Amino acid sequence: MGVGGHTLEKKRTTIVLFSGDYDKAMAAYIIANGAAAYDHEVTIFHTFWGINALRKQEPVAVKKGFLEKMFAKMMPKGAEKLGLSKMQMLGMGPKMIKHVMNKHNALTLTQLIEMAQEQDIKLVTCTMTMDLLGLEKEELLDGIEYAGVAAYLADAEDGNVNLFI
Amino acid sequence: MGVGGHTLEKKRTTIVLFSGDYDKAMAAYIIANGAAAYDHEVTIFHTFWGINALRKQEPVAVKKGFLEKMFAKMMPKGAEKLGLSKMQMLGMGPKMIKHVMNKHNALTLTQLIEMAQEQDIKLVTCTMTMDLLGLEKEELLDGIEYAGVAAYLADAEDGNVNLFI
Amino acid sequence: MGVGGHTLEKKRTTIVLFSGDYDKAMAAYIIANGAAAYDHEVTIFHTFWGINALRKQEPVAVKKGFLEKMFAKMMPKGAEKLGLSKMQMLGMGPKMIKHVMNKHNALTLTQLIEMAQEQDIKLVTCTMTMDLLGLEKEELLDGIEYAGVAAYLADAEDGNVNLFI
Repeated sequence: MGVGGHTLEKKRTTIVLFSGDYDKAMAAYIIANGAAAYDHEVTIFHTFWGINALRKQEPVAVKKGFLEKMFAKMMPKGAEKLGLSKMQMLGMGPKMIKHVMNKHNALTLTQLIEMAQEQDIKLVTCTMTMDLLGLEKEELLDGIEYAGVAAYLADAEDGNVNLFI
Repeated sequence: MGVGGHTLEKKRTTIVLFSGDYDKAMAAYIIANGAAAYDHEVTIFHTFWGINALRKQEPVAVKKGFLEKMFAKMMPKGAEKLGLSKMQMLGMGPKMIKHVMNKHNALTLTQLIEMAQEQDIKLVTCTMTMDLLGLEKEELLDGIEYAGVAAYLADAEDGNVNLFI
Repeated sequence: MGVGGHTLEKKRTTIVLFSGDYDKAMAAYIIANGAAAYDHEVTIFHTFWGINALRKQEPVAVKKGFLEKMFAKMMPKGAEKLGLSKMQMLGMGPKMIKHVMNKHNALTLTQLIEMAQEQDIKLVTCTMTMDLLGLEKEELLDGIEYAGVAAYLADAEDGNVNLFI
């Protein structure tokens, strides 16, 4: 609505990615990349299980307590290790989905995350969850920001599209 | 904010229905029908498992490859075949819920979808998901629109209520 | 956008809490309490399984039919009885999470709900769901409002942050 001397403000899309499911993370990143292509300012705020999409796939040596080691072991290590929200079928579901995605030349979640970084989508990780699950910054992809609920709200409250996924 | 000669713009509600659960689809259609009754322009954008709510219940003869046939078989055929997000209990949950819904004269999901169509709610299906899961237009209800993430964003970015369900 | 004599309108956050998972309810109440701290008017509209977070933990004597008794028995009785959306692991997951939460001095869901009430966050329960599941007001916490989808939309349509959790 920029009139007169005002600069035209960008539209804004802010997504909370709470889920650690491959299909839900794909949906989040497809919407985010689409919005960035339409010139929105886009933030994805990763919280709870959503952080697993940003874990590095190779093991990182970090000193941890017992429970933190347990969590680190039990949670999926990176985007391509996430399961599906439906039709998990003892791990067969994700393989089938990736097979058809490959056949249709659809981007994998890893590629969608790379595209998001190339499009300057702000990828934020919730510091409270990092603390709770005992995750360290070295274990996550490079180029991630770290913040809490206040930073999320600052992005969201003036947003056009706010989603919780 | 219609001022002067401008016509008063309608409020807008845009829902992404990602989930293929009966209860979540019900929630989406109850909010959508409510918003339409309050004179919002309403869009439900069905993606991933949310498309199953729009499948015809009777079998439709369509030529498919092996994986596409598998998906078609494994996914619920239409609104009344969807499961619950909670208390599935080997299929007993949906029956109990439908029993109490019937007792309280609550609308079924099928009826809520019909009401949505009567209220001119725009029902859109994600073309990318159709491709991935090998679904054909003949297999879905009549009167559905087909579009991608760009069309979703165009509806959502000026919206008042945006939800991801 | 308060100009001239107009008072500055408060920002508004409206959350539909559909889920009955401990972690999702925590996320909802953390965002809600954050928004209230930043002076938003905040509503949490509890529907479907989200109502279980507001059930009293002690049993309440209420006359019920057979199905309503079944639902009451099978659904978690109050905030601290909710399960996790992920890593439920036969009940071990919630215990692990609560153990690390305690270690990090994080607030429990019960404490987050108390804080929400102290911050005048409007906690609303969906009357349609109450009917369907056969729940009575005596079974829920005090200070809750009861309303339907129309009241939700009235809060949501002028909101800045709308989420479905």
